[in-house]
Amino acid sequence: MTQPTACVLIIGNEILSGKTQDTNLQFLGFELSKLGIRLAEGRVVRDEPDAIIRHVNECRAAFTYVFTTGGIGPTHDDITTECIARAFGVPVVLNDTIVEIMKRSGRPLNEARLKMARIPQGAEIVENTVSLPGFRIENVFVFAGIPSIARAMFVGAVPMLLQGTPILSASVDAYLREGDFAEALEQIQQKHADVEIGSYPFNRDGKLGATLVARGTDRALLGSVISEIVAVITALGGETKLN
Amino acid sequence: MTQPTACVLIIGNEILSGKTQDTNLQFLGFELSKLGIRLAEGRVVRDEPDAIIRHVNECRAAFTYVFTTGGIGPTHDDITTECIARAFGVPVVLNDTIVEIMKRSGRPLNEARLKMARIPQGAEIVENTVSLPGFRIENVFVFAGIPSIARAMFVGAVPMLLQGTPILSASVDAYLREGDFAEALEQIQQKHADVEIGSYPFNRDGKLGATLVARGTDRALLGSVISEIVAVITALGGETKLN
Repeated sequence: MTQPTACVLIIGNEILSGKTQDTNLQFLGFELSKLGIRLAEGRVVRDEPDAIIRHVNECRAAFTYVFTTGGIGPTHDDITTECIARAFGVPVVLNDTIVEIMKRSGRPLNEARLKMARIPQGAEIVENTVSLPGFRIENVFVFAGIPSIARAMFVGAVPMLLQGTPILSASVDAYLREGDFAEALEQIQQKHADVEIGSYPFNRDGKLGATLVARGTDRALLGSVISEIVAVITALGGETKLN
Repeated sequence: MTQPTACVLIIGNEILSGKTQDTNLQFLGFELSKLGIRLAEGRVVRDEPDAIIRHVNECRAAFTYVFTTGGIGPTHDDITTECIARAFGVPVVLNDTIVEIMKRSGRPLNEARLKMARIPQGAEIVENTVSLPGFRIENVFVFAGIPSIARAMFVGAVPMLLQGTPILSASVDAYLREGDFAEALEQIQQKHADVEIGSYPFNRDGKLGATLVARGTDRALLGSVISEIVAVITALGGETKLN
């Protein structure tokens, strides 16, 4: 696989306490697939400097890209920027562009707001249409946690990313229990090393079944794998419904 | 802190591809808080043996408890049980209780189904009311990925957990921008090392503000911290609304 890889680092006590449902991981996984970047891992860490620094350094060494979400606001619990700088061994410095954007807002440039204008030395800002910029330092992209802002920052970051072959998917719903088709499905998987076949069971109004998903980069091959799956499920007496 | 800690390991390509929105992390974080167990970290990993084994071993050494979700069904992409066994260096063995439960269902006991009756040697089953059992081996609890089943398995696991002092929270909505109250809020945080204060900005129908959350084990202290926060926000000209 020569496809770029990525890791998402979700930073914030509110995600781990159960207060807040994260939705950024799903968004980033979906969008990165379209760009041919394989989201290989996610991590959720608390607002604790040692943990953040350790995970940033592990992940930036292991993956092509790291995307962090959360912790770049003005309050005392927003420590991501400072931790990213420490992970890279650089100071945080005032960014003139961000200060200019802030001045245009007309709100007082107090110490808390100026914290949001400081980014690690050597970082480049990631502009977006809905908020102050995020930033990139080497292969680490630092985004806000609020989903609408994280999404806008990702859009701003896309031109900075090396893309791979888009990862496509095709799927069919099979109305059979997984235990009834698992062996036949495994045989199809064994024939197609370049396609990743997943089975995701469901219970829809009491009708049990599974969504069978084929993922890969070759659209024609995905189509033929889905046809093989449909044939097998039908032969086992199950209904199918293409998605 | 003498409170037990936990890590959730979410296993499944479907979470990282963006196909499926995980909700188990939020559920487990919320329920563990009530038991006084601090969810310290989450990880999301692909259906790849080396990655699963490495993360299981890292996390079971670092935290009091590890809860995995996903990958214990009958299909070829369900590899969690096998990987847990390998992480502990034990074989998987047929569990008679699970076989008995399966027989009662009347469905054919084929090879795929029997896979679900095999658990690592030395593991103990976690019974529940909605599906086949999950299992526990040492400090690692292995649950299904389907949220309704993961929840039922967690309920079955609660009696096996050492509990701590429940982690409580209190919160108030402040209708001020974070940049306007951040410095005052930090002063309150500095006075109360035993309370974790978080600020989570929102935009409700164009009204900007933040939910200010105080978390800790002393209910009276949380109440007085929230009172201090309300006083500060009010002094800065912001409305507040207790949650």
